[in-house]
Amino acid sequence: MRNLPTNPDRIAEDISDLAAITEPDHPYTRRAFTPMFLAGRSYLERRFEKAGLKVRIDAAGNLIGHRPGKNPGLGTILLGSHSDTVPDGGRYDGIAGVSAALEVARALADQGVHLDHDLEIVDFLAEEVSIFGVSCVGSRGMVGLVPPDWLARTAEHLTLAQGIEDVGGHPEVSETRADIKAFLELHIEQGPVLEDQKLDIGVVTAIAGITRIEIVVDGRADHAGTTPMGSRRDALTAAARLVLAIEQLASQFAEGPAHFAATVGEFRIEPNAANVVPSRAVMLIDARAENRADMERFCEAVDALALEVADETDCSVAKPRRISDNQPTPCDPDLLAILDAACETTGARHRRMASGAGHDTAWMARATKAAMIFIPCLGGRSHAPEESAKTEDIALGAAVLLEAVKTLDKQLQESN
Amino acid sequence: MRNLPTNPDRIAEDISDLAAITEPDHPYTRRAFTPMFLAGRSYLERRFEKAGLKVRIDAAGNLIGHRPGKNPGLGTILLGSHSDTVPDGGRYDGIAGVSAALEVARALADQGVHLDHDLEIVDFLAEEVSIFGVSCVGSRGMVGLVPPDWLARTAEHLTLAQGIEDVGGHPEVSETRADIKAFLELHIEQGPVLEDQKLDIGVVTAIAGITRIEIVVDGRADHAGTTPMGSRRDALTAAARLVLAIEQLASQFAEGPAHFAATVGEFRIEPNAANVVPSRAVMLIDARAENRADMERFCEAVDALALEVADETDCSVAKPRRISDNQPTPCDPDLLAILDAACETTGARHRRMASGAGHDTAWMARATKAAMIFIPCLGGRSHAPEESAKTEDIALGAAVLLEAVKTLDKQLQESN
Repeated sequence: MRNLPTNPDRIAEDISDLAAITEPDHPYTRRAFTPMFLAGRSYLERRFEKAGLKVRIDAAGNLIGHRPGKNPGLGTILLGSHSDTVPDGGRYDGIAGVSAALEVARALADQGVHLDHDLEIVDFLAEEVSIFGVSCVGSRGMVGLVPPDWLARTAEHLTLAQGIEDVGGHPEVSETRADIKAFLELHIEQGPVLEDQKLDIGVVTAIAGITRIEIVVDGRADHAGTTPMGSRRDALTAAARLVLAIEQLASQFAEGPAHFAATVGEFRIEPNAANVVPSRAVMLIDARAENRADMERFCEAVDALALEVADETDCSVAKPRRISDNQPTPCDPDLLAILDAACETTGARHRRMASGAGHDTAWMARATKAAMIFIPCLGGRSHAPEESAKTEDIALGAAVLLEAVKTLDKQLQESN
Repeated sequence: MRNLPTNPDRIAEDISDLAAITEPDHPYTRRAFTPMFLAGRSYLERRFEKAGLKVRIDAAGNLIGHRPGKNPGLGTILLGSHSDTVPDGGRYDGIAGVSAALEVARALADQGVHLDHDLEIVDFLAEEVSIFGVSCVGSRGMVGLVPPDWLARTAEHLTLAQGIEDVGGHPEVSETRADIKAFLELHIEQGPVLEDQKLDIGVVTAIAGITRIEIVVDGRADHAGTTPMGSRRDALTAAARLVLAIEQLASQFAEGPAHFAATVGEFRIEPNAANVVPSRAVMLIDARAENRADMERFCEAVDALALEVADETDCSVAKPRRISDNQPTPCDPDLLAILDAACETTGARHRRMASGAGHDTAWMARATKAAMIFIPCLGGRSHAPEESAKTEDIALGAAVLLEAVKTLDKQLQESN
């Protein structure tokens, strides 16, 4: 065991206590806006207070623990992640980051270190897709980027605005946090790379852009028993060609130096009846690219595939439609250098890598210097009860954050 | 126009009047056991009576019109089909056969012909899959082959037994109709072959066996953004390989002399979420074969494909499971010869062909000599509002039936 300034036992306690706050029949479920989520928040509030932090809920509904600096005019260094989960999710996604951030504050207290900057620990509201069907509500809110129409979204007889109020926020207020000078987040990788390569830390260079592309294949509903094989316009078999071609294409893009992945995650056919030749297939591609140029080339190639399959079969394929299209978010280069150095100082084996998943960091990066680190998780599994990470890995990550915060506290002053 | 002994105008009237008896917002919907179905039955009853037939409902819930023969001890020649439809179905599937059968009775009356045998016209109950989820209720009932547990099936707070009672049947009675000496059915082809080959009549050699095979592909649910392309166990891409291989296999079997078709008509994936690599795909193959040997070889080849795909991918594929497995039903060779001859006499261009679809004839064949003829339908379309057939083609088919009935009336006596 390394001799770390952070305490794995405190982290283990945070995580096991929060794990117990779950819908009983669906471990681990603590969805934003539910009573279980509020119970988790109430626990975190006590933990924040125990660490000497002053607790508040900001206008966007984020739980914030405040540690005043010696020179509050310098602004705030913000650390954190989220405590909400997907349904039947895991114990570490988001939670590891909240606990690690809190551990930084506890370790600073242990060491009697007074930073010049204010330090804040945040539990962002509703990072996961909540009952309202949208994600990163709290981090978008903190940087004033909640789309105006979102507040009126309803679920379970509640508007999102009411949901934010219920957790103690003030959705009508548009806060702008000019005081935040830097944001750092720790998160489990949710992929297998660090574990496979026996590394401790991934320093995240960018959060991949996500583009979702819908493809609709139209054939003809014919009687499955009476229509000769050669006379069919089977939308499923045409769609199957597309699925395989998209996988092949994505694999080619993934061979490049920048992160790329694409998945057909949603797929359905109509009429979906045993004795009818499928008349329609609808699929949704989820594509992630570290480089925007890769995404553009991929989308063009998908357009070409659609034409190709329409040409090779008797089905028609509508021009693939971009349902959503988010640019990649590069992390701040100064923070990356600080994080690399903090890994070295802490003795953490590290590499740079892109994040294929979206994170609150991507929203914070719109308003401040932001970066994040990954720690390994078992088999890359996430969003499932078997999601697992080692307390020691989280403590090491927290030590890297601690080191980075100390460096930042100095460097941010120099750059002022 | 040919000079036919049957009257296209009466057939057109049957069909247009029945077409008007539909759920108003869903033409053409007259599902068994619904008030609309009973309205259709009530109309048919009047048409049967107008044709001089004595009407009754048998124990199985079939509507029967009776025309006594000169020598009732000889038994009954039965003609008919069904008047129920699928939801949003067509005007001809089943109805053309009921109208043609009725037209035979009307034409015999026109001609003043008295057969030696009794002649009966039947509208079978619930040939299509009804609210109870099963098909061919009336024809199975007439030959005593309704599975015992079916009567207790419930839908819309009704048991099938009550449903049969509500149409006037006596489900507790197991009638055995030893008097039926032959059954003939006219039906639209529900496929494109007769239209493509510019033929009037298909003399149906056999009703294909139907085997339904379920295949389950298991992969692993991983994060779509973070899991490298090479580290996935994507159930959808593995299933897509299977879909294409099954289509190719079915096309090879269809090149043989006997009818063969196979379709993946049902297909779904789990968790079917945009950002999750599909963990499971479930598909249902509907395979139809005129020859049982073909079906056995096809099933073996599907088993081999499942192993092959499991081998080529990182997914597991369970041994394909036969959900249902019905043998092909050959039509009676004597009746086929009589129908061929009737086509010649009537001047109908005809061919022999198998039926890829199931029909009441398949059930009647378990208890008596049975056969059926197809007439062309537009583009092979069926089970849809655009289903279309020409009144003249139905009238010609009815004339073939009329001729066959006259021949049968003589030949059945000789063979006694």
